[in-house]
Parts: sequence; structure tokens; C-alpha cells
Amino acid sequence: MTEPNAATLDLALIRAAHARIRPHINRTPVMTSATLDAGANASLFFKCENLQKVGAFKARGATNAVFSLPDDQAARGVVTHSSGNHGAALARAAQLRGIPAYIVMPSNAPRSKQEAVKRYGGKVIFCEPTLAAREEVAQRVLQETGGVLIHAFDDLRVMAGQGTTAVELLDSVADLDVILCPVGGGGLLSGVAVAAKSLAPDIKVIAVEPAGADDAAQSFKLGRFVAGNPPKSIADGLLTTLCERTFAEIHRHVDDVVTVSEAGIVQAMRKLWEVLKLVVEPSGAVAYTAIVENRVAIAGRKVGVILSGGNLDLDKLPWQ
Amino acid sequence: MTEPNAATLDLALIRAAHARIRPHINRTPVMTSATLDAGANASLFFKCENLQKVGAFKARGATNAVFSLPDDQAARGVVTHSSGNHGAALARAAQLRGIPAYIVMPSNAPRSKQEAVKRYGGKVIFCEPTLAAREEVAQRVLQETGGVLIHAFDDLRVMAGQGTTAVELLDSVADLDVILCPVGGGGLLSGVAVAAKSLAPDIKVIAVEPAGADDAAQSFKLGRFVAGNPPKSIADGLLTTLCERTFAEIHRHVDDVVTVSEAGIVQAMRKLWEVLKLVVEPSGAVAYTAIVENRVAIAGRKVGVILSGGNLDLDKLPWQ
Repeated sequence: MTEPNAATLDLALIRAAHARIRPHINRTPVMTSATLDAGANASLFFKCENLQKVGAFKARGATNAVFSLPDDQAARGVVTHSSGNHGAALARAAQLRGIPAYIVMPSNAPRSKQEAVKRYGGKVIFCEPTLAAREEVAQRVLQETGGVLIHAFDDLRVMAGQGTTAVELLDSVADLDVILCPVGGGGLLSGVAVAAKSLAPDIKVIAVEPAGADDAAQSFKLGRFVAGNPPKSIADGLLTTLCERTFAEIHRHVDDVVTVSEAGIVQAMRKLWEVLKLVVEPSGAVAYTAIVENRVAIAGRKVGVILSGGNLDLDKLPWQ
Repeated sequence: MTEPNAATLDLALIRAAHARIRPHINRTPVMTSATLDAGANASLFFKCENLQKVGAFKARGATNAVFSLPDDQAARGVVTHSSGNHGAALARAAQLRGIPAYIVMPSNAPRSKQEAVKRYGGKVIFCEPTLAAREEVAQRVLQETGGVLIHAFDDLRVMAGQGTTAVELLDSVADLDVILCPVGGGGLLSGVAVAAKSLAPDIKVIAVEPAGADDAAQSFKLGRFVAGNPPKSIADGLLTTLCERTFAEIHRHVDDVVTVSEAGIVQAMRKLWEVLKLVVEPSGAVAYTAIVENRVAIAGRKVGVILSGGNLDLDKLPWQ
């Protein structure tokens, strides 16, 4: 376990992650639409992480973390607490490596996300839906199993894995001017910002966050990490705050953090379904929402938009 | 207008269509899923025509027809009657060529399909929702405009265009054993069967039809074209019967026609949304339904599955 002790996230770490995970993940397509371009007055390039393994970019970071472990550590299994996609991604990566995965989930996690963890052979341990309960139960499981904690974002291995999203996007599309990236815990955003700025220093990396879960926007403005108010948003994948580790990267590399409304997220999500024919979950539609709500100046620009995931209960669509 | 008078559909006609339409259509991706493969005990290759321009394979045939017209004929515009995707596809192709398109639509056509025609600048003329009314109104429009009728499937230019779907699929996936293709009017099926059998004579082409709209299955069994009972199915794109022209190709080249249930179509559609993260309309899910309902012997085989379209009203999902 050398890399997790590396002090900073850099392109070398992200490239090493890419080489490590490439056999186990999808190189997701980049989609375009003349209809959506006309609506935005820009050229949009949608990086489809909803078509990633387990239906979200989380497969990248979790796979990198699991395959980074030396055999003796790996044998005791991996542990995390997650309301959703990271849990499924960690379960899948552990299954691929043939080791156990213990996933602590809040009792109110979406059914589809619970089932995904089980489908990949993960052991689900339910807890009360509070961060304190999640962390407490995860600590207990760590002690009982001797396993390794793989946090959903407060982990350099995970952040480096998520950054491979931007490596692929920049490789697929030349001369991008802007990347729009959703932010929750900041693992994806950290990795994307470091990769993008290393590969193309002039690119703008703009984070997009639900106004109801705006700790990243507040922290960015203040220049220090603040937890903010209890988050509330339909974008259930973003109901978490940054950590010091992700904030440091975001503070250093991200150009702006903008917020979007709940109604905008629903509108953007529906538009993506109708036009791109892609099932995108609310969190996955947040970056595009910044365009729908005119929160970013992109006229005439080439804009990468990260659609981060596609897992949701089809019985409960937000426009009904 | 030389090709439309060609007597038979063959690979040369389909290849000529492909060369003609390639600048105007998407080469759609072929998607795979370990989850769906495991459920089917086969290797499935989904040809994603829901990601085609206008959200359906119809863009292929309509574009070929419109760009086949000599200038003097094209100038007066094109006319069709269509409950949906063909109308939008023809409107788009006409817009690309800068000529008018007159689309006769039944008054009960899905809202999303009406809007698509208008978005591409097509002139919508509503009629009663019967085939007789559609044809009568289309005839009147033809007389008034001097335009050219481009039928949704009873047209060699259209059939040849739809056949390009199979050319791409076989080019993308080596050694396919089977292709599953939905059948309504038979334009797609004719083109796919001719292309596939020409390129890979040992391949099996199996048509899939809703049991409530089973004229193709009946005609196939009888060895002659019969219109059957009035069709009724959630698969609104397949609520039409073959014609003599498409039946002749199907009789000659298709290996079997199987039928599927309404409940199966809904189940298949939902599964595609959940696992592939693709918005597929009911008609577009019909080919995969044959796998869900065990209507085809595919164990251990490499199977191409055509997802023909992705246009539907998101407010009225069939599992609600």
C-alpha cells in the first residue's frame, strides 16, 4: 500500500489508477446532441458515466482502491459506509478480486441501490440514516473483520480513480474549454480538476451543486472547509459534505462552484432522458442543470458535461 | 430516381443507401451487459437505434429516400402518413435537404411524436385514426402539393435504408449467430434480413412481434400475406401490418417469427432502462422481450438484438 500514503493527488497517480482499472471498467462513450447544443448555444460533450459499470463513476475509484491493496490486507475484505453507488462499486470491485465487502447503508437508502450491493455479493449492514450512525457502525465492522476502510471520497486512491473520467474525456474531445462536474463529497471533482488542469491548464473546471446542499459553494467562497446546513436535495448522491482532503484540491484547482435549483435538476434530468435517451439519476443531471438554468457562461464554447450516474427507482420519477 | 424502380432489395442497394446516408445519421453504438448476458445465458449485442437521429432507426430509411430524389422531384416536397417515428425522420431528412415535408398523423398520435415532427419543421396534417383516413388525406396532400409519397415501409428506398442497421451491426460484431428484430410494417426486418443473409448466410434472422399485432407471424406461417385482426399493443410503433413488398422479403429471408406478450414487453423495457440505462420505447424493447420470455433458443449463442427506438411520453410509463 504505497500510493495511499502519497501526500497529494497528481496526474501520475491518476494515470497509474487508469492503467490499474482499465480491464475492469468501461471506457464510457461521449455523446453529443444537435438539439441540446442549439438550446445551449454551445458544443456539449456528455461523458456518460451512467453507462459505467454499476451505473456510476464510482466504479473507477472503488476499483482502484481495491486493486491497490496488497494481498494480505485485501484478504480481510473492504468496508465502507455509503448510501448508494459507492457501496455497489466497492462490492463489485471486491467480487472481482475475490474478497469480502461490508457495506454499511442507511435504512432509507433507495431500494435499487440496496439491491445493487447485494447483486455484487456485498454484505449489507443497515444503520440509522445519520452520518454519526454510519461512521460508528462502520468502525464496529472494521474492528470485527480487520478489513480496510475504503471511504467514498476521503481517500486518495478513490480520488485518483475518479480522475480517470477526465483523462478519458480529454482524450476523446480535443480543445475543451470548460468541464462541468457535479460535487457531493468532492472525490470526482478533485480527480477531474487535477487531471484536467494537468492535461490542459487553460481549461475551466466548474463544479455544480444543488442549492439545497451547497457546502462546497460556501466553502469555496470562504476559502475554508465548512460543513454548512444539513443537505436536502433530490440529488441523493450529493447529500454529503466535502472533507478537508477534497476541499484542498478543489480550492487549488477548481475555477468556480455554482448552485442549481431542485426544479432545474428535474427539468434537466427529463431533458436528458427525452433527448439523449439516457437514464440519468438526479445527481447525474446536476452538471447539465447549470446549463439549463444559465448558471455558466458557455456561449460558443466546447463544454464537457459529466453525467455521473444512472441509478434510481423507476417507480418514483420526480416529474410525476 | 433510378433505385426506387429496382425490382428487388439486395446488398448493393443497401450499401448504396449506407454511403448516401452516412453523413446524416449516427453510427449507433452496440452495447453489452454482463448482467443481461447472465440472465440470457448468451452473449447479447444491443444495436442502439434509440440513439439514432430522431430516436429511431427510421432516420435511416427516410434519409435514404429523401436523398435519392432528383432535384426537380425533391423540390415539391415529400409526403407521408405516419403515427410516429417515420414522420419525424422524414421531416428531418427533408429539412436537411431544404425541401418541405407534409406529415399526415392520426389525431391520437403520442404527443412526443407530434412534437418531434414539428421540431424538424414538418407540416403536420391531422386525420382520423384509421388507415383509410390516413391514406385518403395523404392522397389529397399529394395532389395539392405535387410532392412525392415516401411510405414508411412499402418503399424499396426506405427498406434499403433500414437495412444499413444490420450492415453496421455485423461490422461491429464478428460471428453473430442470431439477429432478433422487431416487426411492424416490415421495413426494418426486410432490410435487416437481406443485409444479414447476404453478409453472413448462416446467421438466423428471427422476427419478434407483439401477440396482439401478429399479422407477420400469421402471414409467415401461412406463406402468404394476410392482414390479420386489428392490431392492439402497447408497442405503438408496430401497430401496422406488412405489405406484399415486405412480406415477400420476409418470406424469403427470415427464419422465424415469434410473438411476445404485453406484460413481457413492459418487463423487458423496464429491464433495459434499469440495466442498460437506456430509454427504449415499447416497440424498441420487443426484440429483447423474446429473450425475457424464452421464445428463442439462444443458449451459448452470440445474439444481436435491435433496440429500434426510444421515443415515448415520459409521463405515461407502462409500469405505473
